[in-house]
Amino acid sequence: MTYSDIPSAQTLVLYFESKGIKNIVISPGSRNAPLTLSFTKNPFFKCFSIVDERCAGFFALGMAQQLREPVAVVCTSGSALLNYYPAIAEAFYSDIPLIVVSADRPGYKIDIGDGQTIRQENVFKEHIGYEANLKQDLNHGNESVSVFLDGGQTQKAIQEYNDKEISLALQIAIEDQSPVHINIPFEEPLYGRTKTTGVKIQELPNSTAVESGIENLDALRGTWNSSVRKMILIGVNYPNTLTKEILEALANDNSVLVFTETTSNVHHPNFFPSIDSIIAPIEKSDKREELFNALRPDMLITFGGLIVSKKIKAFLRTYQPKTHWHIDTKKAYDTFFSLSHHIKARPSDFFEAILPKNKQHSDYNTFWSGVREKYEEKRINYLSQIGFSDFTVFNQIQQCIPKGYQVQLANSSTVRYTQLFPMDASLNVFCNRGTSGIDGSVSTAVGASIYNEEPTLLITGDLSFFYDSNGLWNTYIRPDFRIIIINNSGGGIFRILPGKEETQEFSTFFETTHHLTAEQLSKMYGFEYNQVNSEEQLQDVLANFYSVSAHPKILEINTPRLENNNVLLSYFDFIS
Amino acid sequence: MTYSDIPSAQTLVLYFESKGIKNIVISPGSRNAPLTLSFTKNPFFKCFSIVDERCAGFFALGMAQQLREPVAVVCTSGSALLNYYPAIAEAFYSDIPLIVVSADRPGYKIDIGDGQTIRQENVFKEHIGYEANLKQDLNHGNESVSVFLDGGQTQKAIQEYNDKEISLALQIAIEDQSPVHINIPFEEPLYGRTKTTGVKIQELPNSTAVESGIENLDALRGTWNSSVRKMILIGVNYPNTLTKEILEALANDNSVLVFTETTSNVHHPNFFPSIDSIIAPIEKSDKREELFNALRPDMLITFGGLIVSKKIKAFLRTYQPKTHWHIDTKKAYDTFFSLSHHIKARPSDFFEAILPKNKQHSDYNTFWSGVREKYEEKRINYLSQIGFSDFTVFNQIQQCIPKGYQVQLANSSTVRYTQLFPMDASLNVFCNRGTSGIDGSVSTAVGASIYNEEPTLLITGDLSFFYDSNGLWNTYIRPDFRIIIINNSGGGIFRILPGKEETQEFSTFFETTHHLTAEQLSKMYGFEYNQVNSEEQLQDVLANFYSVSAHPKILEINTPRLENNNVLLSYFDFIS
Repeated sequence: MTYSDIPSAQTLVLYFESKGIKNIVISPGSRNAPLTLSFTKNPFFKCFSIVDERCAGFFALGMAQQLREPVAVVCTSGSALLNYYPAIAEAFYSDIPLIVVSADRPGYKIDIGDGQTIRQENVFKEHIGYEANLKQDLNHGNESVSVFLDGGQTQKAIQEYNDKEISLALQIAIEDQSPVHINIPFEEPLYGRTKTTGVKIQELPNSTAVESGIENLDALRGTWNSSVRKMILIGVNYPNTLTKEILEALANDNSVLVFTETTSNVHHPNFFPSIDSIIAPIEKSDKREELFNALRPDMLITFGGLIVSKKIKAFLRTYQPKTHWHIDTKKAYDTFFSLSHHIKARPSDFFEAILPKNKQHSDYNTFWSGVREKYEEKRINYLSQIGFSDFTVFNQIQQCIPKGYQVQLANSSTVRYTQLFPMDASLNVFCNRGTSGIDGSVSTAVGASIYNEEPTLLITGDLSFFYDSNGLWNTYIRPDFRIIIINNSGGGIFRILPGKEETQEFSTFFETTHHLTAEQLSKMYGFEYNQVNSEEQLQDVLANFYSVSAHPKILEINTPRLENNNVLLSYFDFIS
Repeated sequence: MTYSDIPSAQTLVLYFESKGIKNIVISPGSRNAPLTLSFTKNPFFKCFSIVDERCAGFFALGMAQQLREPVAVVCTSGSALLNYYPAIAEAFYSDIPLIVVSADRPGYKIDIGDGQTIRQENVFKEHIGYEANLKQDLNHGNESVSVFLDGGQTQKAIQEYNDKEISLALQIAIEDQSPVHINIPFEEPLYGRTKTTGVKIQELPNSTAVESGIENLDALRGTWNSSVRKMILIGVNYPNTLTKEILEALANDNSVLVFTETTSNVHHPNFFPSIDSIIAPIEKSDKREELFNALRPDMLITFGGLIVSKKIKAFLRTYQPKTHWHIDTKKAYDTFFSLSHHIKARPSDFFEAILPKNKQHSDYNTFWSGVREKYEEKRINYLSQIGFSDFTVFNQIQQCIPKGYQVQLANSSTVRYTQLFPMDASLNVFCNRGTSGIDGSVSTAVGASIYNEEPTLLITGDLSFFYDSNGLWNTYIRPDFRIIIINNSGGGIFRILPGKEETQEFSTFFETTHHLTAEQLSKMYGFEYNQVNSEEQLQDVLANFYSVSAHPKILEINTPRLENNNVLLSYFDFIS
């Protein structure tokens, strides 16, 4: 074993090991050498090298998303650190324990005109679970300066302080599933090593298990039982959150409507997986008021992360439920301005406790199931009539994904289109909905694929793909990794939004049209590449796309920029 | 003229126009539609479209660096904004007036689970001149919600508040040359327009000219005249800061040594442009102490931004001058822990006031000029003996840059190597030394080239180039734009630093070796591309590289990864 000879670097590494944090994504630098040395020379850790910190952040996030345990990123001082911020904000809102470790200059070298030196302490303050600002060790580097700066503190006091701060940061990351930031100032020399560590770390208490206690259960049961229109709306959610028994009980309760999204990872034929296909026709109906009132739940129950559908948000904010319970051990957003209870429990525990033995009489589900059947029929009909477009492409793609795949979705159009078509129940679907940015989708998918038993497919639009093309710049992409790019030559979503117009300003500044393809990037990063422009070509390529290959693959689908939006908007007319 | 129908968007645009801020770099989004509409439909503004906000930030920074006036970036809500942070930190430390405008959700929609929604207010607090958090207009969007949230404020009060905040932000950007952040919450609908604006903005006072008063001039003159060893050290500095007369006076004063860097943009045959070539031999000398004492100045005068040479910093921190004056109208860093005066003046005014009519007797310059002549001779000698490498490549490149070019340098190895060889006095040289990051170099160079009379050349290493390859993703690259990439297959600088070792961990996590070339990116973004591997090939390509062309050009020079560091380190031995 080799350690840096700097105590704080040793301390950090020992705590990571003791808490089982073993995946470390390192970006190159000199100031972080004490950390890089210590992590890479210790076989406990699995280290990854990623140059672009923005990508490193999302790569680690993707890995932590799948492992459901902390993953660390480590960088040098200066602006390097700031490139993590998009991934940190995503981790913050998606409750992912990303541990950000930044090497820093000693305090006395900040704001005196040294390079790669910024104000790193607390720089992520707005979106972080904890910021641990470690102190510089006395018995390293320029002794006289250190003594001058430590305000009379002993090394023992510094060690105790750093112990406490590191422990607290890791505890928050693990128990709270939050990103945390640990900033460590290092004095030169940075490359010193030792075979043994003189540091003894404190034994950390085991993290307390999250208490899943449901208060006032009888009262909640009463409300549940007396509600004849219960809507369950599931946001971003890990697979297998609910047991088959719970799913069946919910599916067969006529007083319950379960609305799911692609990212809910919950499936049952009686559930409602395409929310917009229900709501859009109502918006257009002349019985709008009557239908919305028929849909309006007495009781809304939500769990999981952010909701994709804007239509359901708009609907529930206007037609508010009498009661809204959010079930989550950590937090509850008042998304519909009607939150009445934050039930701090796991959804499975909650439903097991609340589900009654006897079903109530209600026609809530029956009525809307009829509506669903109608749009599903009409969708098939519609698909047979229209030309090759984003709409048909998503339908085609989603039918062909091999069972069990992990599917990573980019934001914007991609995640929205996928809601419109069935997704096989065996697929595990993820999307960075925390900030819902178009940034980081490639890196997240690559990171998420690393330890997965099944292969990973990323479905992305062109802008999101090019935005994070540096996500391909690493040596960890598995040969079974697949990317499908729906290239509609720009931000197709803007043609769907109200501002659309056929002007130069619109296509330049909203749609941001381009003529790029992924062909050169595929070559650069060693991907097999196919480009298709029609349904037939797509079918051909999909036939072999998922077969075993020596190299990862990119499939780029060019869709007609000027037609996509009409096809989508006409769909909602057609099913109305 | 067309405006958004939202008063705060109108107000912002009117203030920008009144202060002559006309270059606006817009990234696509819906929340910022009120701004995009207002800027792009007003012929006063010159708008640029860049998708990746990280690149947009540096592109605007490069433009502002050259124009020496504020340039704005505009983005939608959410993580988009965070991607600006690296450029903001650079602007903060390099005193560049980058104006960051972010569209935000209304306050009541933050932290309730909406997409693309983060805590935007004050998010850049650590590195910003001012954060203006505008208030949402009452007379727009959902009236009842607005009234509920405004805490009883009238639209008049909100307008006054926004007026004040925008004015203050712009004033600080202009007078302080600082980046500022203006955050504007917008309620839907976002795409409404009007032909006229109902908003009347306040007449802003003209910015007060910076006072260039030198206090205690007589005392300063006394110190100057009594110092027989005066060192003038110039950091990052705009061309033509000092008149020819001042340069001549300094050059012919034997008590003065002027140390310049490539980024100083100051030239005279009597100055010392290769600091490390002076200091490295002393470090190795057995008369080290004696020579350093002979070099140690009584008085150190600095101006400009950050210093590249680590050796001069280490030297001056150990052999501190009796007096250190920093000349700058805004700020003075105590880089050498010996700052005695911050003289708030323009360097030209200072030198005009202080330079005596009569020179003092001193042999300070004579002695070190002799040393300089010796290493210059030895360098020529050394170059004739060594093989093709980073070292010879920089020598070759720097000899061939056409007169008058703007030269943009990437950080790390590039900016350090350029210090070792002469740079023609007609060249204008820039480098993002504020944070000295490897990020943003391509975008900065492209932005800096837009309005320049002369063509722009970017010299960069491979990591910095790939890090910011999205900098090529825009339609504003001039056919005369040139990039030279010195590709040594990784972070060559790490082979020069003390941690070097021939292990897998070193090459993966420090050097981050790779086999990428820029060929595919050149093709993707419409560049002519050449790759060379020898001095002869390089000479051949350089012969036509700068000639007029229909497309911009990339020249990639592959240098021998395992030899570069030895060649550099042996150079310092050779001249010792």
